[in-house]
Amino acid sequence: MLDCAIIGGGPAGLTAGLYATRGGLKNVTLFEMGMPGGQITQSSEIENYPGYFEHGKTGMDFMDTWQEQCFHFGLKHEMKKVQKVQKADEHFVVTFENGESTLSRTVVVCTGSTPKRAGFKGENEFFGKGVSTCATCDGFFYKNRPVAVLGGGDTALEEAYYLSNICSEVFVIHRRDHFRAAPSTVDRAQRKENIHFVLESTVEEVMGDAMGVTGVKIKDKSGELSTLEVPGLFVFVGQNVNNDVLKTNDGSFICDVNEAGQVIVDLSMRTSLEGLFAAGDIRIEAPKQVVCAAGDGATAALGAISYIQEQA
Amino acid sequence: MLDCAIIGGGPAGLTAGLYATRGGLKNVTLFEMGMPGGQITQSSEIENYPGYFEHGKTGMDFMDTWQEQCFHFGLKHEMKKVQKVQKADEHFVVTFENGESTLSRTVVVCTGSTPKRAGFKGENEFFGKGVSTCATCDGFFYKNRPVAVLGGGDTALEEAYYLSNICSEVFVIHRRDHFRAAPSTVDRAQRKENIHFVLESTVEEVMGDAMGVTGVKIKDKSGELSTLEVPGLFVFVGQNVNNDVLKTNDGSFICDVNEAGQVIVDLSMRTSLEGLFAAGDIRIEAPKQVVCAAGDGATAALGAISYIQEQA
Repeated sequence: MLDCAIIGGGPAGLTAGLYATRGGLKNVTLFEMGMPGGQITQSSEIENYPGYFEHGKTGMDFMDTWQEQCFHFGLKHEMKKVQKVQKADEHFVVTFENGESTLSRTVVVCTGSTPKRAGFKGENEFFGKGVSTCATCDGFFYKNRPVAVLGGGDTALEEAYYLSNICSEVFVIHRRDHFRAAPSTVDRAQRKENIHFVLESTVEEVMGDAMGVTGVKIKDKSGELSTLEVPGLFVFVGQNVNNDVLKTNDGSFICDVNEAGQVIVDLSMRTSLEGLFAAGDIRIEAPKQVVCAAGDGATAALGAISYIQEQA
Repeated sequence: MLDCAIIGGGPAGLTAGLYATRGGLKNVTLFEMGMPGGQITQSSEIENYPGYFEHGKTGMDFMDTWQEQCFHFGLKHEMKKVQKVQKADEHFVVTFENGESTLSRTVVVCTGSTPKRAGFKGENEFFGKGVSTCATCDGFFYKNRPVAVLGGGDTALEEAYYLSNICSEVFVIHRRDHFRAAPSTVDRAQRKENIHFVLESTVEEVMGDAMGVTGVKIKDKSGELSTLEVPGLFVFVGQNVNNDVLKTNDGSFICDVNEAGQVIVDLSMRTSLEGLFAAGDIRIEAPKQVVCAAGDGATAALGAISYIQEQA
């Protein structure tokens, strides 16, 4: 029986592993199909993780130290895809896609959420090189330069507003002529002089060179194509919350989640199910920042240790 | 008028400054009397901040990069001691000890909490070199070695239990013959075979050499002295929550706090007073870890930015 099963190998999962093992838990395994690291490994530059400020280092470089450090204290890594987590009596059953399973006294779920891709040409190629899904992370790289935002929901308009305080101009591209966002949010964006709306239009292609994005090809409702010369395009067309492992066979969840499927936690990263903790982008109100996910992971691991102590 | 006043210059305050300025706020000032850095600068070694894993580097070395990074995006630092924060209409008045004051649209309070010192000989001299107030931070440095714990409250016994999973033996030194801690916590500690109680005793002195602590001199109720040869002593004799700046003239607080005086926040680090955020060890349920405080600071700054946007 494991002391703690950690599902997901991004900053939250790795930090949970560091704190769980360094905190004295003997059998702690992190389940992640690929190399741990998470979404940040796709970034071309990081400058907002406190203590890491080396110009020109990529997200992959950045996570190098984490690997060594987080596995240094006894954390194990198994390349298995978790299918589901169930609670049986006082422990958890973690079932893998290959049908095998393992028991654990506690579970920390850190499977994150995945920004949806819009599907235009060049999106994957230039992801992390001008195409971004995070204004907080990447907005500053376009300080005093124009950027485009794709999307028409609350997140798109809130992020456009955030960007408008950093960038020279923000072009919001939206396929309809009205917005799903809250009226007050729309109103605020409309009143901001450097936010411009490109409505009833879609992104056909993002173009660029070895240095990154150089422009966005836009198609309007009449089918006419135009090019917006911007070095950055922010895509906000929704999030997939990676909560499948918490689903039961009848489609309900083993713990409380909100409407969007995000796991409800308290300040100690406890879920509504005792012994189950959530950390990082899968939880409600996640700021979606590496340092926040890492903080969550530490908090969740300390919670798991306390929980095990309380059972003693 | 400032966009954001940050009170306190530890990991929470510095990270709040990084995120507030990088997020486009123009006038952001961090108020801290000395050099920013916080309690961690007193540590002799750090190995649990993800991404920072360099053997032999001290807390002071560790915070070096933070200084450069967090002030890189326009954060200002003023060496002023804040006396109080008040809300007047839609803004805050931050008053300094010299009687001056400044206005700010938002405030992030990160003044932390300070572990109380017990007052024995050598305590300050060996602080960070064998005398610790944080089992999570420093327990691992004593893996498979004996340590002593001073204190008889919940924290002391919980931390003793935490240490008992890492260290070979844990000696709990307590001046009385009974404990203030919850009966279940006491019971659990008593049942743990490598936790030993040294009751009705006080610490007279911690002894050591250039390498750190070598032993603890203990006085029992008859006045007899004995020496416990341990390389580490963990002191848990209470915390001072540094919440004075939130007190009004009548002694009440401008926002909700719990019994211990810790500021009540939600997952977004919002306090009960709009526009006022708290981050780090001053808040309820703080795990008292650098990475958690930093995550709080980022979250609070993003909250301050959103709050200002909503006022637009």
